[in-house]
Amino acid sequence: MIPYQVKRCFIVILLFIGLLSLRQVYADEGMWQPHQLPQLQSRLNELGLDISANDLSRLDQFPMTAIVSLGGCSASFVSPQGLIATNHHCVYGSLQHNSTPENNLITNGFLARKSSEELHANPQARVYVTEALTDATQAMLAGIAAQEAGLSRYQKLEDNKKKLIKQCEQSGIHRCNVVAFHHGLEYQLIKRLEIRDVRLVYAPSDKIGGYGGDIDNWMWPRHTGDFGFYRAYVGKDGKPADYHKDNVPYQNSAYLKISAQDLSEDDFVMVIGYPGSTNRYRHSEEIKSTFEWYYPFARRLREDIISVIETTSSTDEKAKVAYKSIIVGLSNYAKNFASMEQSYRNSSLLTRRSELEKTLEEAYQKEAASAENPISELGKLVVEHDRFRERDVLFQYLRYADMPKIAMRLYRFSLEQQKPDHERELGYQKRNHKRFKNSLQRITRSFNASVDQAILAYWLQRYQELPAEQRLQSFDQYFKQSGKALDKQLSKMYKRTKLVKEAERLAWMQRTPTEFEKSRDPFIRLAVASYKERYAMEIARKTFNGNKQLWQPRYMQALIDYKKQNNEPVYSDANSTLRISVGQVKGNRPKDGMAYLPFTTLAGVAAKHTGTAPFDAPQQLLELNKNKHYGPYASKTLGTLPVNYLTTLDITGGNSGSAALNNNLQLCGLLFDGTYESIIADWDFTESTRSIAVDSRYMLWVMKYIDKADRILEEMEIVY
Amino acid sequence: MIPYQVKRCFIVILLFIGLLSLRQVYADEGMWQPHQLPQLQSRLNELGLDISANDLSRLDQFPMTAIVSLGGCSASFVSPQGLIATNHHCVYGSLQHNSTPENNLITNGFLARKSSEELHANPQARVYVTEALTDATQAMLAGIAAQEAGLSRYQKLEDNKKKLIKQCEQSGIHRCNVVAFHHGLEYQLIKRLEIRDVRLVYAPSDKIGGYGGDIDNWMWPRHTGDFGFYRAYVGKDGKPADYHKDNVPYQNSAYLKISAQDLSEDDFVMVIGYPGSTNRYRHSEEIKSTFEWYYPFARRLREDIISVIETTSSTDEKAKVAYKSIIVGLSNYAKNFASMEQSYRNSSLLTRRSELEKTLEEAYQKEAASAENPISELGKLVVEHDRFRERDVLFQYLRYADMPKIAMRLYRFSLEQQKPDHERELGYQKRNHKRFKNSLQRITRSFNASVDQAILAYWLQRYQELPAEQRLQSFDQYFKQSGKALDKQLSKMYKRTKLVKEAERLAWMQRTPTEFEKSRDPFIRLAVASYKERYAMEIARKTFNGNKQLWQPRYMQALIDYKKQNNEPVYSDANSTLRISVGQVKGNRPKDGMAYLPFTTLAGVAAKHTGTAPFDAPQQLLELNKNKHYGPYASKTLGTLPVNYLTTLDITGGNSGSAALNNNLQLCGLLFDGTYESIIADWDFTESTRSIAVDSRYMLWVMKYIDKADRILEEMEIVY
Repeated sequence: MIPYQVKRCFIVILLFIGLLSLRQVYADEGMWQPHQLPQLQSRLNELGLDISANDLSRLDQFPMTAIVSLGGCSASFVSPQGLIATNHHCVYGSLQHNSTPENNLITNGFLARKSSEELHANPQARVYVTEALTDATQAMLAGIAAQEAGLSRYQKLEDNKKKLIKQCEQSGIHRCNVVAFHHGLEYQLIKRLEIRDVRLVYAPSDKIGGYGGDIDNWMWPRHTGDFGFYRAYVGKDGKPADYHKDNVPYQNSAYLKISAQDLSEDDFVMVIGYPGSTNRYRHSEEIKSTFEWYYPFARRLREDIISVIETTSSTDEKAKVAYKSIIVGLSNYAKNFASMEQSYRNSSLLTRRSELEKTLEEAYQKEAASAENPISELGKLVVEHDRFRERDVLFQYLRYADMPKIAMRLYRFSLEQQKPDHERELGYQKRNHKRFKNSLQRITRSFNASVDQAILAYWLQRYQELPAEQRLQSFDQYFKQSGKALDKQLSKMYKRTKLVKEAERLAWMQRTPTEFEKSRDPFIRLAVASYKERYAMEIARKTFNGNKQLWQPRYMQALIDYKKQNNEPVYSDANSTLRISVGQVKGNRPKDGMAYLPFTTLAGVAAKHTGTAPFDAPQQLLELNKNKHYGPYASKTLGTLPVNYLTTLDITGGNSGSAALNNNLQLCGLLFDGTYESIIADWDFTESTRSIAVDSRYMLWVMKYIDKADRILEEMEIVY
Repeated sequence: MIPYQVKRCFIVILLFIGLLSLRQVYADEGMWQPHQLPQLQSRLNELGLDISANDLSRLDQFPMTAIVSLGGCSASFVSPQGLIATNHHCVYGSLQHNSTPENNLITNGFLARKSSEELHANPQARVYVTEALTDATQAMLAGIAAQEAGLSRYQKLEDNKKKLIKQCEQSGIHRCNVVAFHHGLEYQLIKRLEIRDVRLVYAPSDKIGGYGGDIDNWMWPRHTGDFGFYRAYVGKDGKPADYHKDNVPYQNSAYLKISAQDLSEDDFVMVIGYPGSTNRYRHSEEIKSTFEWYYPFARRLREDIISVIETTSSTDEKAKVAYKSIIVGLSNYAKNFASMEQSYRNSSLLTRRSELEKTLEEAYQKEAASAENPISELGKLVVEHDRFRERDVLFQYLRYADMPKIAMRLYRFSLEQQKPDHERELGYQKRNHKRFKNSLQRITRSFNASVDQAILAYWLQRYQELPAEQRLQSFDQYFKQSGKALDKQLSKMYKRTKLVKEAERLAWMQRTPTEFEKSRDPFIRLAVASYKERYAMEIARKTFNGNKQLWQPRYMQALIDYKKQNNEPVYSDANSTLRISVGQVKGNRPKDGMAYLPFTTLAGVAAKHTGTAPFDAPQQLLELNKNKHYGPYASKTLGTLPVNYLTTLDITGGNSGSAALNNNLQLCGLLFDGTYESIIADWDFTESTRSIAVDSRYMLWVMKYIDKADRILEEMEIVY
């Protein structure tokens, strides 16, 4: 039936695909530091990029100068006038902040038709431009003995870090940080220009920007128009300044052109952004403990707290609204952990890591037979620390009960203020007072006393199930009762406390430790009574970290040495610093009998439409789809308008909003998610790992035909 | 990047696929009667079958003689000794019937190592061999005037049917039926040999045969080893007989060889079986009413009843077991209806049907301007009948409350027994007494008084919400109360009734109407009190059917005439008679951005394994998979063992167990399901419609390596 030429072609292609796939497995793993790019030159050429990696890697040149961080999200300049493209979910908070009962910007979308209509995004919004990366390894290790461990190593590292940051931030317009690479084998001082006046320029309606919502989160096929635009403003002198109506657009030195050109499966793509954190080099004991204990334990906590919130707020519409984003956060990571557990069951991650460690250990022992080897030392540390893991994790989740959390943080704040600024914990230094105050204010919008009490009641129930040796005397004494008697005690506490009032919370920022110790507020009393024991937990954690800071860099060194022998470059785990990943547009076979195609299309948006959020597409979109009105944006390969696509690019949280660049270094999409099967990629990048981008052609189409954002389209340089 | 030859090949193939798909749309729709096969000769040749369709279509020749019905399932002979292959879910009841507390055949599977170990499947099990199909149109319409409608048409058709059946069944070893084709345009008398001694020969464990369970039901990717074996036994004289240990295997005249040869995407497949019912030619008004009202209404009823059963039985393990299969049935069709609603939302079915009807109507009016046209007459009938649809459907669902249902059926039985046998309703004639008795007995295993009462309470609540004109006086009078007072009344009824006892139910089969009318049993009283009104509902239904029987054949005639003009052969809706479908092995694109691959593989079974049912694969299977131990059964194309595959074959419920035949007419799999997207195919076969088969190579592999069923393997003729 099949003509001979076609049959032969199939064979040619099968052979070709066979070769490709042999060569390709894991080829696209890696979030590379700019200075590492030249090591990837051959891979870049192979993928079809005709540019010298050296040219790409300079911080003060295009394209690096076009890439910015929003703190938590990535973004890029797309015009010389400070116009910034990022994800819809990265500008979501600003849409919320600027919404009024009359004009809900989330539902309606927002378009500034002239520059004077651009809205102050929100007081916390920032744009960070990385200006310098300086090696700080020597400075960080100054005064630390080679074998120094535990609390003293930790404390010295903290002190050195504070000094470096203080010095770096003297300009008053920079935000600096010292970041560990390879878990402390190297340190870098990172200097970023901090632009403080950020304005909202344009975002499509949630019906496009949030299409699919939580249901489609981490899912493929995906149809989300996850994009939005900010603009960076500075003072008339060109320097960062607080928001002021007279401020002017920032004149950035480089920007990305937007591609309306064709993009197809196997095409080269690259991403530059700020991935948050990964765990690609953790010890096998950490892998075991995390997947086999932590994820199930923490998932149950999350699911239980969700259920407590839902039950308590079921008849209270206001409480439901207040906790909506908290539930989204809880369930987001409950889903994440579930995927981790699921992927781990069919994964050989633990075996592979254990085998690698065995090899490293043998190599290490050959080199330095006398010394303690970092592989087993690190393993022992983790096992030892895990003795209190139930308690440690449970106390992390106490943060979901606002009243005890706030009381404890306020008391700590007061204690820290007694010291000179440079001796304080970083989070309590003056440079962070504003953030601290903001956090006390924000609670007002996401708090309900009954819900908070129910969360604390649930938490205490779990606390009381802890084995005796993991309990805190102060907590046992403060909460002697259980069941109904405990409920009664909690009701009294919530009735009596004044911390539910924002003014009261802010007032406590000014008070002395003595005032705290004399207070009759039940939550302040709990905070004071338990401080010593909680501080002891903190010291234990810092000691553990100090010990890890001794052994983890050596573990990494052993691993890097081993990889070097095999000519494999090693990238560092993600740490919110500027990274580059390279890869291809590519479908996937997520499971036996099924394939993900690389692109979704406009017809798929219409097919998912039910008229009910999160599948409530705008009427206009449905009509344009019906009429196949794609303008100049249709894909030549698909013959229709692409919406989202899959790539092999190695990304993680923090990369949200990053520009995907094509082989002409034009913006061909924005990365915004990974597939469900890729969640474990934070620990284990595999051939199934795929990230999801919104296609630049869909962005342009929505701007042109749905939102008539012609002003923005004209400002950008679009390549047809 | 991609070499030029490869690129050119892609273009060649794209063009080729383009041509194919143009030609292929809907090509595989149709469940053809044997005598229609010659009309498909060119399509058969095109698909690669080098056999004359005439040779295929004779009832008394191979392969037709190898195909049997189990009543509800299809099956085929696979040895000359009456060995029958069908689905695991078709022998499930027999496994259940023969299980003991010590040996659960569902969990353990069953293998008769010698013929004396073959177990009596169960008393209801039957094998039907179609021996003759005779046109009965004339006989059925005898004595009926052309325009005769309503109850009298219905009644005369019933009477003619009873006469034909009686005459046909005189042999004592046949079961006959008269079946309408094209909704009454034609009738056929179907004569089937009824083999009454059916034995269980072999079935894999539920861990293979039911792998994926309800979760994977109607889903792809699928990994179910849905196969099992029966054997037909007859008396020593070769004639059907009741079960007896001295009976001997039936000597069938033909059987299917089993293929272990390669099968790949696009290969020809054919299925011969007994599809139950489809609705491909319903009036647009019926489509509208069914999809827009009936499915949502009935789905809610199903979901509510499930929730009532689950709540009431939550603390009663025995009750849970009793209602397990009832819940499966309820939720099976709740899922079915949900898919119908979902597919319909994105379907143009209603528009296409309305447009077709407009065309038919115009054509009809040109031909016979004076006459009433069947298109609009049929539409009017449906709309008129729908006035009471809430009541009619609600009363159908009263069957989930056993006590009222049994009382009503018993009273009706008693009334029917007063008439001579040939005047009784078909279901109450002597030929069905055994079935009737069986149904009264079966209830014992699936009944719990508290659950039954809760279902009736829910039903009455829904009943009391009916608009006044749809209510029954007798029910209103019997159940005057609502809420707690009604609950109290129901509690009393369930305390007092003796129908909960099997012996009591059977005893009522012998009693006269007068005894019923004097009974103080609360459910018998309800049945007697409401009989008149319920009978009136029945008459209304029969009248409606009689009217439809007048207009529906004419509607079909108009449609057939129209299709003939366009050279399209028309198949009749499925009606549990022998049909043939032809098609190909083929993957699918169920939605934008996703593809179903045509085959699943053994690795996929292992990947789904969690250790908890329904994903609890046998340890041995997991090890064989690990060692890639496929024996001679690996697919040459895939390089691994295929498990299930997708086909374009047009099937529906009743086809379960049908052999898929390859182009050598060997059994290459057993059809057992359709994909979720194909559920609407009962109304609307589309290019996305796919059926699922278990691959014969997986069957052979499981038999050889897991279950060591060598005796069965040796008995069959396997083609390597």
